[in-house]
Amino acid sequence: MGAEILTIGTELLLGQIVDTNAAYVAETLAAAGIDVYWKTTVGDNEGRIGEAMRQALSRSEIVIATGGLGPTEDDLTCRVIATVLARPLVLDQTVLESIRRRFADRGLAMSRNNERQALIPEGATVLPNLRGTAPGLFIPVRDGRVVVAMPGVPLEMRPMLTEQVIPRLRERFEVSARIRSRILKISGITESQLDEAIGDLARSSLNPTVALLAHPGEIHIRLTVKTESHEDGERRLDDLEARLRERLGALLYGRDGERLEEVVGRLLVDAKQTVAVAESCTGGLVCHRLTNRPGSSAYFVQGEVVYSDQAKEDRLGVSHELIVRHGAVSRAVAEAMACGMRDAARTDLALGITGIAGPGGGSAEKPVGLTYIAVASAEGVICRELRFLGDREINKLLASQAALDMVRQCLQSRRDAAQA
Amino acid sequence: MGAEILTIGTELLLGQIVDTNAAYVAETLAAAGIDVYWKTTVGDNEGRIGEAMRQALSRSEIVIATGGLGPTEDDLTCRVIATVLARPLVLDQTVLESIRRRFADRGLAMSRNNERQALIPEGATVLPNLRGTAPGLFIPVRDGRVVVAMPGVPLEMRPMLTEQVIPRLRERFEVSARIRSRILKISGITESQLDEAIGDLARSSLNPTVALLAHPGEIHIRLTVKTESHEDGERRLDDLEARLRERLGALLYGRDGERLEEVVGRLLVDAKQTVAVAESCTGGLVCHRLTNRPGSSAYFVQGEVVYSDQAKEDRLGVSHELIVRHGAVSRAVAEAMACGMRDAARTDLALGITGIAGPGGGSAEKPVGLTYIAVASAEGVICRELRFLGDREINKLLASQAALDMVRQCLQSRRDAAQA
Repeated sequence: MGAEILTIGTELLLGQIVDTNAAYVAETLAAAGIDVYWKTTVGDNEGRIGEAMRQALSRSEIVIATGGLGPTEDDLTCRVIATVLARPLVLDQTVLESIRRRFADRGLAMSRNNERQALIPEGATVLPNLRGTAPGLFIPVRDGRVVVAMPGVPLEMRPMLTEQVIPRLRERFEVSARIRSRILKISGITESQLDEAIGDLARSSLNPTVALLAHPGEIHIRLTVKTESHEDGERRLDDLEARLRERLGALLYGRDGERLEEVVGRLLVDAKQTVAVAESCTGGLVCHRLTNRPGSSAYFVQGEVVYSDQAKEDRLGVSHELIVRHGAVSRAVAEAMACGMRDAARTDLALGITGIAGPGGGSAEKPVGLTYIAVASAEGVICRELRFLGDREINKLLASQAALDMVRQCLQSRRDAAQA
Repeated sequence: MGAEILTIGTELLLGQIVDTNAAYVAETLAAAGIDVYWKTTVGDNEGRIGEAMRQALSRSEIVIATGGLGPTEDDLTCRVIATVLARPLVLDQTVLESIRRRFADRGLAMSRNNERQALIPEGATVLPNLRGTAPGLFIPVRDGRVVVAMPGVPLEMRPMLTEQVIPRLRERFEVSARIRSRILKISGITESQLDEAIGDLARSSLNPTVALLAHPGEIHIRLTVKTESHEDGERRLDDLEARLRERLGALLYGRDGERLEEVVGRLLVDAKQTVAVAESCTGGLVCHRLTNRPGSSAYFVQGEVVYSDQAKEDRLGVSHELIVRHGAVSRAVAEAMACGMRDAARTDLALGITGIAGPGGGSAEKPVGLTYIAVASAEGVICRELRFLGDREINKLLASQAALDMVRQCLQSRRDAAQA
C-alpha cells in the first residue's frame, strides 16, 4: 500500500514558504507504518490540481492533499475533488452550523464566502477542524482507495492528521507495524570520535536502526524501530540504549526533545544548587539559555557580561596585573572570572568564559575560536581550553554549549558519586 | 515557458528533512522570471525517478532535478537521465581529473565509487561543483527543452543554480523580465495598525506589489517588482519606498537582510556612543543580540543579568526601599536599573529591563508579559510599559526587540535632529 502527498498552493511554487506540511505528513505516515512514494506540489490552478489528483489516484492507494480548502475564490480543492470523483457538492448542515457558531462566538458576522466551505463532495466523511473554519475530508473511493483533504494551515492540519486521519487509515488498511524513534543527545565529542566509539553497534543494529545527525555542539543519535507491538518496540529501544550508554556514559546528556539548558536546570534544581555566569566572548548567550527554562530564578542568580577589561576588573575583581601578564583570553583570567563571580554572587557554582569569537581579534598565538571556560565551586576551579572553527555566531553557540555541558558534567559526576 | 522541479531522495519522502531545496529553486526561478508549475519528489528508486522525469519532460520545458548525484549505489539520477534520454554514459576526463585533485589536495585516496561521478550522459554540459565532488549537468534535449541536474547538498546546489544554471536558462529562453524584491522592516507596530497606515497603498500598488509578513516583534513589508530593465525596477521600488517612508517615518528600521541589532550597532558606531545593559526578564538576550555583530566591543561595554532582587541592589545600586515599595517589575525599578547601570559602566547609554516572562510569577495586577524598559542617557531617562501575550521565550524575544528598538529610535531621532 502506498500513499501520495499532494500539497496545493501557489505560494509553494513561488518558494515564498517552505513546504513543512509535506515533511510533517511524510514523517507521520512513516511513523504509522504507511509508505510514501510520491510527493507533488501544484499551485491554485483548477486544471493542474485535477491532473495531479487523477495521476495520484492512478498510482497510489492513499492520496493526502493539503491546502486550498479556505473560503476564497483561490481555494479550489473541494471543487476539484468533486469533479475528479464525479460526485456532486452538497451543503453539509453540521459544517455550516459549526462555522456559523465560530463566527458568533467572536461576535463576527459570517460572510457568504465562508458558506462555500460547507459544500462537501457527496459521500465524504467530514473531519472537524477545531482550530479553524475549513473542515477536512476523508473520502473512500473506488477499489478501496482513499482521498483525504486537509487545510494547509499547519496548526489546523497537524492535529487533524494525527488524531483523525491516521487512526482511520490504520484501521482501513489494517496496518499493524509501527515505527517509533528515540533520540539520544550527546555533547563534547566529534562525529568521528562518536563513530569510533559506537560505529560497530550502529552499523550492525538492524531493528532498531541507528542514524547520527550532527548539530552545532551536539550530535543526535536516532534509534528507529519497526515492530507490531508497543512493548516489543520499547524493549528493543531500551536494550540498544543501554548498550550505547555503556560505551558513552556521561557524554549522553539527554533524550528526545530535551535541550541541554533544560537538563542543566533540572540538575541544579534537584541538587538545590545556584549558579552565576561571567561571560565575555559568549556575550550573554549562556545567561539567555539558562533563563529560557521556566522557574530558572530558583537557581540562576546573576550574570555579568564583561566585554571590556575594565569591566572584568571592576565587576569581578580580576586583577589588572593578571590581565596584563596573561592576556584577557587566558586560562588564568577565565579562572579568576569564575572565582570572582562566585564570590560576588555568593552562589554554589559560577562560570567564567573568555575567548575570541571573531572575525577580528585573533593572532597566530591566540587564534579566533580560542576559548577558556572555567567552573568554580566549593571544590575549587576547573578550566578547559577549546578551539572552535566557526564564524562569530557559531563560535558563541559552541562556547555556550561547552560551558553548559561542563556544568552538567560537574553536577552529574557529583550525583553519580553520591549514589555510588 | 514552464519549469518543473524534481527533488530526489528517500529522506524527503520519510520527512526526515524538510525540502528547502525546492523552495530555494522555486524562489530563484521566480526571481529570474521563469514560472514553475509543478514540483515532484520521489525517493532513490530507479523506476519512479524515471517515471517522474518522463512525465516532467512531457509537460514542462525546463526540468530541474536536485539530489541523487553522489558516489553511492543509491545515487541514480545520472543513470536514469541517460536511460530516459536514450543516451550513453561517457567518462568525462575533466570531471575525473577534478575529483582526483580534490582527493589529492586532502591527502586522500580516491575510491572507485567516486569515479562513477565522472560518468556523464553524452551531450551534457558539465557544471563544475566548487564545493563538492558531484558535478551538475545542463542537457539540451528535443524541442528546445532542457534537463538540469544538481547535487542535493544545499551549499553545493545554491551557487551552482544562481551562477551557472540561471544565466544559461535566461539566455536560452530569452527571458527579459526580472522579478526583484525589497524588504522594509518595521518594529513597534501591530499588523492591523500597519494595515491602517499603509493598507490603501499596499492594495492599490500593482507593480511593485506589496505583501506584509509578520514575525515576532517586527513586520516585513515586501515590495516585488517585475520589469525588463534593472533601472526601471529600482526606480519603481525607490518611488514606493519613499511613499511608505513618508507615512511610517522612523518606525521603519531597516532593509532586506539587516537585523535590528545590526542597525543599532551601526548607529552606535556612527554616533561614537557606548552602551551597557541591565536586564532581568530578558535574561541575557539583549546582550547576546548586541554582541552578535562583529566589532561590537567598540560600543558594547558591559551587561548585568540581574535576576534576583539582591543582584539589582548589589550590582546596580537599586535601593531596597524602591523595590519593596514598587515591586521589582515596575517603572521606578526599570529606571533605577538603567541609571545605575549607566553610572557603573560609565557609558553614554544604558538599558534597564524588568518584566514577567512567565509562565509563573504573574498576578491580576501584574500579569505575565508585563515589561518595563528604560533608556538612560545624558538627557535623562525614558521608560515604556509593554504587555506581551506570548510564552516565555516569545516574551523574552519581544522584550529584547522592544529594548533594541528604543535604543535605535533614541539614536535616530538625535541624528535626525542634528541633521535638521
